Amino acid sequence: DLPVALIAGPCQMESREHALEVASALKEIAGKLGIGLVFKTSFDKANRTSANAQRGMGLEAALPVFAEIRESLGLPTLTDVHDAHQCAAVAEAVDVLQIPAFLCRQTDLLLAAAATGRVVNVKKGQFLAPWDMKNVVAKLTGAGNPKVLLTERGASFGYNTLVSDMRALPEMAKTGAPVIFDATHSVQQPGGQGTSSGGQREYVAVLARAAVAVGVAGLFIESHPDPDHAPSDGPNMVALKDMPALLERLMAFDKIAKAA
Amino acid sequence: DLPVALIAGPCQMESREHALEVASALKEIAGKLGIGLVFKTSFDKANRTSANAQRGMGLEAALPVFAEIRESLGLPTLTDVHDAHQCAAVAEAVDVLQIPAFLCRQTDLLLAAAATGRVVNVKKGQFLAPWDMKNVVAKLTGAGNPKVLLTERGASFGYNTLVSDMRALPEMAKTGAPVIFDATHSVQQPGGQGTSSGGQREYVAVLARAAVAVGVAGLFIESHPDPDHAPSDGPNMVALKDMPALLERLMAFDKIAKAA
Amino acid sequence: DLPVALIAGPCQMESREHALEVASALKEIAGKLGIGLVFKTSFDKANRTSANAQRGMGLEAALPVFAEIRESLGLPTLTDVHDAHQCAAVAEAVDVLQIPAFLCRQTDLLLAAAATGRVVNVKKGQFLAPWDMKNVVAKLTGAGNPKVLLTERGASFGYNTLVSDMRALPEMAKTGAPVIFDATHSVQQPGGQGTSSGGQREYVAVLARAAVAVGVAGLFIESHPDPDHAPSDGPNMVALKDMPALLERLMAFDKIAKAA
Amino acid sequence: DLPVALIAGPCQMESREHALEVASALKEIAGKLGIGLVFKTSFDKANRTSANAQRGMGLEAALPVFAEIRESLGLPTLTDVHDAHQCAAVAEAVDVLQIPAFLCRQTDLLLAAAATGRVVNVKKGQFLAPWDMKNVVAKLTGAGNPKVLLTERGASFGYNTLVSDMRALPEMAKTGAPVIFDATHSVQQPGGQGTSSGGQREYVAVLARAAVAVGVAGLFIESHPDPDHAPSDGPNMVALKDMPALLERLMAFDKIAKAA
Repeated sequence: DLPVALIAGPCQMESREHALEVASALKEIAGKLGIGLVFKTSFDKANRTSANAQRGMGLEAALPVFAEIRESLGLPTLTDVHDAHQCAAVAEAVDVLQIPAFLCRQTDLLLAAAATGRVVNVKKGQFLAPWDMKNVVAKLTGAGNPKVLLTERGASFGYNTLVSDMRALPEMAKTGAPVIFDATHSVQQPGGQGTSSGGQREYVAVLARAAVAVGVAGLFIESHPDPDHAPSDGPNMVALKDMPALLERLMAFDKIAKAA
Repeated sequence: DLPVALIAGPCQMESREHALEVASALKEIAGKLGIGLVFKTSFDKANRTSANAQRGMGLEAALPVFAEIRESLGLPTLTDVHDAHQCAAVAEAVDVLQIPAFLCRQTDLLLAAAATGRVVNVKKGQFLAPWDMKNVVAKLTGAGNPKVLLTERGASFGYNTLVSDMRALPEMAKTGAPVIFDATHSVQQPGGQGTSSGGQREYVAVLARAAVAVGVAGLFIESHPDPDHAPSDGPNMVALKDMPALLERLMAFDKIAKAA
Repeated sequence: DLPVALIAGPCQMESREHALEVASALKEIAGKLGIGLVFKTSFDKANRTSANAQRGMGLEAALPVFAEIRESLGLPTLTDVHDAHQCAAVAEAVDVLQIPAFLCRQTDLLLAAAATGRVVNVKKGQFLAPWDMKNVVAKLTGAGNPKVLLTERGASFGYNTLVSDMRALPEMAKTGAPVIFDATHSVQQPGGQGTSSGGQREYVAVLARAAVAVGVAGLFIESHPDPDHAPSDGPNMVALKDMPALLERLMAFDKIAKAA
Repeated sequence: DLPVALIAGPCQMESREHALEVASALKEIAGKLGIGLVFKTSFDKANRTSANAQRGMGLEAALPVFAEIRESLGLPTLTDVHDAHQCAAVAEAVDVLQIPAFLCRQTDLLLAAAATGRVVNVKKGQFLAPWDMKNVVAKLTGAGNPKVLLTERGASFGYNTLVSDMRALPEMAKTGAPVIFDATHSVQQPGGQGTSSGGQREYVAVLARAAVAVGVAGLFIESHPDPDHAPSDGPNMVALKDMPALLERLMAFDKIAKAA
């Protein structure tokens, strides 16, 4: 039972400078607290509610920035892939390939991600029972890649609402894969603002505390210098300045959760 | 932010001796840990899945036992009422009147319970949003009784399944009422065994840990010397022998949850 | 496979005159269409969202009106009971005793209703799977009363929302009891207006058409001369003037649904 | 309000002979009843529960068969695409491109499908509210392709269960797009058999009747000569021999649903 790790960063890569600035700030916060950090950001928001919403920098522009963050800051990085064809290129610059929740059953994408040999983090679909993730794990391990992470990010609960079933964490852990709790997207209100998704930032800490007390290998918390002006997931990102106090409390819970 | 309190006892009062034995055992456990205890048991299971299931000792036989537990052990007691006509009599022997979840909208029952002046603990209906409990609280306080507790015990999630939305705890706390988490009935699988409800005892601790980390005034955990042979809710009660370790861990989480 | 019957009337009995007026109007409508009619209205809304909402005329004032409607108009009547003590008195004036959805598992109420020998119509709880209604039927038939109707009125679907699972109709029919579809409360939005429930009147016809095509013994449609000024369930009642066209279409579907 | 059309065929293309045989049989059935038919089958089951499940013939082998069916039988065809790169090639041989439910928010796939100029049929995600499909329609029409169909195939309802909300049909129709009801996948039990999905074939007719009575532009019903031995979706496909009686009844409902 290792201490909880942190996957954090801005929802989308807005620019090289922005990504480096946030990565540096998170590195400093994580360093002071002694928490392991993986820097997360997306090069493409491929399933925005509306086609008019900003999608991000794109693969080609983003990969050198990921490489730079890894090299200059020494941080492992994570990003999401949307298409089997992207996996090989992304794997050269990025340490963890993430499969989006909507795509967690797409066999070709899973196999292409597995084939890179990188760690693969699969978000559980909002439409999937936690025990059904064993089939997803089997697709990856069956392809020869045992480095699988599973992430809970909420289950559909009526319309425009997600609910976080804390039983999903130990259920998914039965697969043997480390389980991450995504406190950012679990408080999303899908489609809740008509042409974009809403969110309940005030409940990020609530659900993160619950998950850590239950026991998780890692937390996924999107963070941003100025969430209210972020191009996506603003309503559910945590401001960088609020991260240290949040993480400190979570680490205290984690210590008790994992005490013998 | 007072330390978490405990509402515990066997699902139903099986006999005077059984009730006293469990109450004594819980008193000793709670005393050693310094946790406040309210003894809970039911004199009538008024809404069993099947009419053939055992209902309990009944009101008249149970009230003297409640009085005896209060007097001889010095424990406050809690029991559930199902009918407005029962409230006055129950209030003479019992300290907290509990409104069952299915009945949380029955105005007459709420008003009769309020009229006793006793503390009233209302379980949130499986069919109710947490923010709608403010109307329930208003029925009680509007009747002149401000001593209201609210208890989360799971929300309907498809058929034969409940889910515990941890956001419900701070949502209900907005009413000003202390919020209890019922870890026993939240793991119930309603009707899940055909003619009785199933349960997932292994998830009592999981959900209780989550709730305490979020922050609650109290925990509701049914416990029994031999749950597998209990006449009701056996699949989700905790064995008395497992309570000390469970409570100790929960109190450690509670301390962090309520640290300044 | 008898033709579909109709249970209709205003949500609550507002006055003797109002009840008689609506009953007469419905009798005329039903007579012209050749559809069997049971007149429904409530003497007490015992579980309003808010304690300040109007509850109705009360038992004593209402019973003579029910008796008068039966006698002067020759209509069978239906009303809901909330307490075991009410059943015997209600059974003297009313033909069908209805068990509200929240109370469908209250054993004493079911047994008291069964003991009257009247037809008992049980609404399925929003928290109950359709196959679990067999246990409810068994409580009634086990008490010696085989005259049971079951009514679908929506299942909890996230917060403040119900969904009508049309599979519930044939599922409940497996018990052997005639199945009614309540098109009024199935479009309710529980608590959806803060201190009262909302409703989607535009979907009454949609769901009623679906249910009749699937095949039901009866329809439950609350109707009112002026729904927008009704004291309860206004948002989901159908105006009397709209009933003939709605029923005519439904009867056409029913004929095909029950063709050999 | 045109008469209801039918999208039908075997879940996956098993061989050239099999596809032609089923298409011919369906053509004969549809011809006798005077119902418009689009032949549907999949060249790749890209999101099977398990990686070991049979995926189908693949794109290259299937396209000539689609072309042959169109030419020799004069039937329009429909198949699902899973990747933006497939759209152009598929559009040469197939008349309607279908976007799978899990992929209904993938912008690149939608844009590539729109760019072909073919009719695009989007299945509503199990995780999406019906009113949120307006954003999906806008992605397609915004790309210059107004030929959009929307298909209801059930919404997540707890774990391993879907529910068909009949209100979704008129909700989606507000977009102006013709609405299809998929009676095959609406009765699916996702992951319900451990390593494959279960289904409730007995409810295909139930839900199809409901949907037609509400009013739809088309029905989607997978059918097979021998469903119990089909490589996928066997538990919810309808046997070819049962189609004529089912369709005849549905057409009778449709006539009433669309009467002035």
